[in-house]
Amino acid sequence: MPRPDRTQELTETVHRYLAAVANGSVDDLVAFYADDATLEDPVGGEVHIGKAAIAGFYSAIIGTERETELVTLRVSGNEAAFHFRLIVAAGDNKMQIEPIETIVFNSEGKVTAMKAYWSAADVKRL
Amino acid sequence: MPRPDRTQELTETVHRYLAAVANGSVDDLVAFYADDATLEDPVGGEVHIGKAAIAGFYSAIIGTERETELVTLRVSGNEAAFHFRLIVAAGDNKMQIEPIETIVFNSEGKVTAMKAYWSAADVKRL
Repeated sequence: MPRPDRTQELTETVHRYLAAVANGSVDDLVAFYADDATLEDPVGGEVHIGKAAIAGFYSAIIGTERETELVTLRVSGNEAAFHFRLIVAAGDNKMQIEPIETIVFNSEGKVTAMKAYWSAADVKRL
Repeated sequence: MPRPDRTQELTETVHRYLAAVANGSVDDLVAFYADDATLEDPVGGEVHIGKAAIAGFYSAIIGTERETELVTLRVSGNEAAFHFRLIVAAGDNKMQIEPIETIVFNSEGKVTAMKAYWSAADVKRL
């Protein structure tokens, strides 16, 4: 089945997304998503549906100091899966989480579904 | 939302699945799946639906010599995401693929949906 190779486009989008997770505002992050997108972080928890709910989710992490680092990325069709490192500092508390995320992109390059796989066992206090 | 922690159960199942990818028969592999399961490998390619289609998919890899190694695993709710290394040898050809896979499990521990994220760029000739 012929399909356009979106590897470069989606690789660039994932890098911009991780830069926004580290340094962006809630609006910067919400701008990655399609209007009717879903966000499930962690997988098995609440599914946030639509930009307002997604903005609510991200407002919880704004106000912390954050760093992100991409570990492994796979682009496959219109989707990406990647392992990355997130370091979050709030006051004297600093912790590291290394989720695996999957993202489905629409034809405009907007995120229609994001899922983050991690559990308490993957959180390390630094 | 309280939910049972399936980390240990699903970790063990992923390890048994990767052992079967390396050394199992088609029947061994199909036994991991629920009757109405879906398998999409690579993501963006054909979705194989049900045990007969899944058996057809796996029969293509039987007859090769295979090794698997788990690199990173995340268990989240009823799902798992993992990065693993697959080395396939057929005659004089040996190649390595390192997909990221996601698996949804039902309450009996059977796979209801498997997706493998990789592209030609992730295949290395050894």
